[in-house]
Amino acid sequence: MADFLELANARQSCRAYTGEKVAHEQLVKCVEAARLTPSACNSQPWSVVVVEDPKIVPQVAETTMQLGLNAYTKDASAFFVVIEERAKLMPGIAKLVDGQMFAKGDVGGFVLSLTLEAASLGLGTCILGLFDRPKLRELLDIPEEKSIFLVIAVGHPKKDAHRDKLRKPLEEVARFV
Amino acid sequence: MADFLELANARQSCRAYTGEKVAHEQLVKCVEAARLTPSACNSQPWSVVVVEDPKIVPQVAETTMQLGLNAYTKDASAFFVVIEERAKLMPGIAKLVDGQMFAKGDVGGFVLSLTLEAASLGLGTCILGLFDRPKLRELLDIPEEKSIFLVIAVGHPKKDAHRDKLRKPLEEVARFV
Repeated sequence: MADFLELANARQSCRAYTGEKVAHEQLVKCVEAARLTPSACNSQPWSVVVVEDPKIVPQVAETTMQLGLNAYTKDASAFFVVIEERAKLMPGIAKLVDGQMFAKGDVGGFVLSLTLEAASLGLGTCILGLFDRPKLRELLDIPEEKSIFLVIAVGHPKKDAHRDKLRKPLEEVARFV
Repeated sequence: MADFLELANARQSCRAYTGEKVAHEQLVKCVEAARLTPSACNSQPWSVVVVEDPKIVPQVAETTMQLGLNAYTKDASAFFVVIEERAKLMPGIAKLVDGQMFAKGDVGGFVLSLTLEAASLGLGTCILGLFDRPKLRELLDIPEEKSIFLVIAVGHPKKDAHRDKLRKPLEEVARFV
């Protein structure tokens, strides 16, 4: 097993895409990997709309450009629109905690898995938290009761120069006891 | 880059540990990898208490055994106690959304990264959502205002037989548009 640290370091937000199409099989593979993400009681409180139709992709891109942000998504080849679903916990546990208590963390893992698989396939991704929710909901026919969690732009990176990650030092993040 | 799918498949919840000590350097490496997890505005809303002192490890194990659950944690060699910290978003974005809107998803990614690095080092982990919060808080001196997110048991797996993962089929998780 290769050291995960290498992949964790290689994955980075990609904000320049070539516009070249991403193979359907590669998008499927990203979902295959993400499907294996662990979750509380194996509840898998997630689903994803994978947008790859060249007529719809630019419309999703547009929903991410509100506030004049994310202009680069115009060159993304696909989008993952990740949805937080209702979590079905085991009955003994559901009695003790709020049903969605662990869901957001679990979906966060699902999102990370999508981007890690994409990175290991040489694809670029960028996780987007701000987008025109009502417009995206309408465009993709996502029912009102479903919560859109995040959008991920996917494509072939234009430049794949690795950037050093800016992170808090280890001492600030971890305390050893 | 090796395919991430392989590691995603290899990682599984470990519920039987040998009790053998995990090297401090390996625990550090898990945090190193998790530190690289992406987060909204690079806010990194996480910290972790890494418990490896053989006098304290059994006490943490005990806090996970409430309700008669998780007896196997008695053989874990270490624990990651993951904390959700206040997220500092970029001012332009902080104006638009609740400051913690993305935090739980981000910390979920941090948790997954810890377990993935551990798996790639041959260690076993199990993510635990139920534990005696007040006792754990007191034991590890975690201030009231900090939110304990999850606990992860770590150790050398007793049996490393791979189990097939039970997951919803791809068609139930993904819709292609």
